Amino acid sequence: MKAVGIVVEYNPFHNGHHFQVTKARQITNADVVIAVMSASFLQRGEPAIVSKWFRTQMALACGVDIVIELPYIYSTQKAETFANGAISLLAEMGVNFINFGSESGNIQDFEHLLTFMRQNKVAFDRHVKENMKLGYSYPRATSTAFTQLNPDCDTLSLTEPNNILGFHYMKAIQDQGYSIQATTTLRRQAHYHDQQISEGSIASATSIRQAIQNGELSEIKHVMPTESYQLLKSYKQTYSLLHTWQDYYDLLQYKVLSTPVTHLRMIYECEEGLEYRVKNVSKRATSFSDWMQQLKTKRYTWTRLQRLATHILTNTTKLEMKEALSQQTPEYIRLLGMNTLGQAYLNQSKKNRSVPLITKPAKAKGITAFLEERATNIYLSPLSSEVRRKEMSEQFSRHPIIAH
Amino acid sequence: MKAVGIVVEYNPFHNGHHFQVTKARQITNADVVIAVMSASFLQRGEPAIVSKWFRTQMALACGVDIVIELPYIYSTQKAETFANGAISLLAEMGVNFINFGSESGNIQDFEHLLTFMRQNKVAFDRHVKENMKLGYSYPRATSTAFTQLNPDCDTLSLTEPNNILGFHYMKAIQDQGYSIQATTTLRRQAHYHDQQISEGSIASATSIRQAIQNGELSEIKHVMPTESYQLLKSYKQTYSLLHTWQDYYDLLQYKVLSTPVTHLRMIYECEEGLEYRVKNVSKRATSFSDWMQQLKTKRYTWTRLQRLATHILTNTTKLEMKEALSQQTPEYIRLLGMNTLGQAYLNQSKKNRSVPLITKPAKAKGITAFLEERATNIYLSPLSSEVRRKEMSEQFSRHPIIAH
Repeated sequence: MKAVGIVVEYNPFHNGHHFQVTKARQITNADVVIAVMSASFLQRGEPAIVSKWFRTQMALACGVDIVIELPYIYSTQKAETFANGAISLLAEMGVNFINFGSESGNIQDFEHLLTFMRQNKVAFDRHVKENMKLGYSYPRATSTAFTQLNPDCDTLSLTEPNNILGFHYMKAIQDQGYSIQATTTLRRQAHYHDQQISEGSIASATSIRQAIQNGELSEIKHVMPTESYQLLKSYKQTYSLLHTWQDYYDLLQYKVLSTPVTHLRMIYECEEGLEYRVKNVSKRATSFSDWMQQLKTKRYTWTRLQRLATHILTNTTKLEMKEALSQQTPEYIRLLGMNTLGQAYLNQSKKNRSVPLITKPAKAKGITAFLEERATNIYLSPLSSEVRRKEMSEQFSRHPIIAH
Repeated sequence: MKAVGIVVEYNPFHNGHHFQVTKARQITNADVVIAVMSASFLQRGEPAIVSKWFRTQMALACGVDIVIELPYIYSTQKAETFANGAISLLAEMGVNFINFGSESGNIQDFEHLLTFMRQNKVAFDRHVKENMKLGYSYPRATSTAFTQLNPDCDTLSLTEPNNILGFHYMKAIQDQGYSIQATTTLRRQAHYHDQQISEGSIASATSIRQAIQNGELSEIKHVMPTESYQLLKSYKQTYSLLHTWQDYYDLLQYKVLSTPVTHLRMIYECEEGLEYRVKNVSKRATSFSDWMQQLKTKRYTWTRLQRLATHILTNTTKLEMKEALSQQTPEYIRLLGMNTLGQAYLNQSKKNRSVPLITKPAKAKGITAFLEERATNIYLSPLSSEVRRKEMSEQFSRHPIIAH
């Protein structure tokens, strides 16, 4: 059996995702689609709208055969670290292909870019360093450096978020020497950052989350598969909320106000005196968006600061993350869900796996599992105390979801 | 002008307190009554029901002339440390007398006890140590040790909370060599720990807090001075709550779940592996009282564990508290309120004070002020975000209350 791997957040699962799953299988002619899905906190430094369990159900209902967890140590990271983690997990799962969505839709464009970047690495790094000295944010420094290299016109631009991720997936495969073939699917219609829901059946995840935040669930019904939409509604009914940063703001503020700057400084991604800025802002801000707006400077992107907020909330230190990321291979693979086809694949590929496939986190040891448990408990904090207790106690014994 | 000092929490101010203020002035014939009042968190390890500002107003409306702050580093401590801090602040204020309520009402009983304890110190300490080894809580170990010394029948018992405090006030005066005369007022009717509101005009603070927790404010109207009762009602109206531990439970649980045991262990009063017990209980408990009930063992008193909870909530470490308590004299005296008479006393006694009298905390430096600011910010956490912001920003510039 052949497998194609995809890297996903499904926050929430929409028609664009469904399109990619179908295309990934079609292009590669793979038997199974394996998604590595971010657990509780996402790359933009946000809590997932619904739990990983509900998002796993969405995925299984809409064409994915196996869902494994992208743990906290990888899910809340800049593109490079995020991609390295995701690809190493997919490689351990034995995928033959990966597939990712892109504005280009042409894999040669990415191969071209990869070669170009390899040839110009020294100059590129120098430009990035110089640009950072000018006070640019890291993404701006890199995209400017890219322009400064003056690539020929048919080289893909590194300024688009999906190009950056795609580039890093392919670079990770190359750097780690995996024999995985990369493929890409042309993204349809919606642009990643679009704020408005389109009239068509495809909308950006950003516009969908915007509608959710405004409490306008019915507005997104036509851009999501029925099963996914029902699961979203059911989560809200069961847990009385869809998770947004604002649900965690009291905890974040409390955390900052109760923590001396000498300890804030030890939090992962807290650099260059940001601890003082965070401390001052936390005394004045009255909501999470207010906090972010007051914290924002041109030196840091919104996403970078949201990731910092996430690490403060989860109390993740530089030392802990250094230890976690120093592992040569993932400490374990956590299975979140599968269908019958997925189960057959797992049985067949069993002998090739060198990393333990965990079905209950109680069996996972080590720093990855330690940080994952903490992040999960904190993710559950806004739920009512009774539900929280139940969910916390179940997280150790919960079996993967099996779809038939 | 002569002054009498009293040590108070006024949580809230009731008729028993009013009786003591009147008696303290009468017995000592002092011109002014100076209260050193616990700030935000109290000796039993609880948040004060209303802010120190409202409790200062209660005090000034009911016969107290000057209110100074007993900072966090002293207010949330066992009797000995609590008494040492309070007495040293009153001594710096130049009081000639102190007065405290007791079941005995006879100061000779306390002098007797003090002499007896001095003479039997070595044997007493040995008994305490042996009793602790048997797994007794510290208060039980000391009261048993006291009985083991077999004092003659007219020696006051060290098993009553008010006797213990009175004993430690007098011991602090003696140990630190202050020339302050101790006096005591016979407590009327209510016993400290009574749970039921009595029909008379005096009720215990415990029974009053119980009624408040049950939302039955009208039940305690007859046991409080009118001004104090009005202030209590007004606080609830203005801030939409009266502070109880339950209002902080989500923060406490979050704090424990986000903190590794290696750091929990560094929290003040977290001894003998309590960090593991705290960690486990926090995953299961659904309310503060549930948390406490699950945490309780015969080794520790309820009060001792509530103080631990307070230190966890405020993130106060052993190292910080060690530094704070190593100060020879208080770092500052913070004035919370006064009337005209109090003002006259402050002017007259100015030249005798060696410790700065602070009217705004922005002027206070050092570890005491640092920990006080943190505790205050956390005390304010359950208020709505807008009110919280306002109160946090005002705490640095707020002037003492002046009553006319």
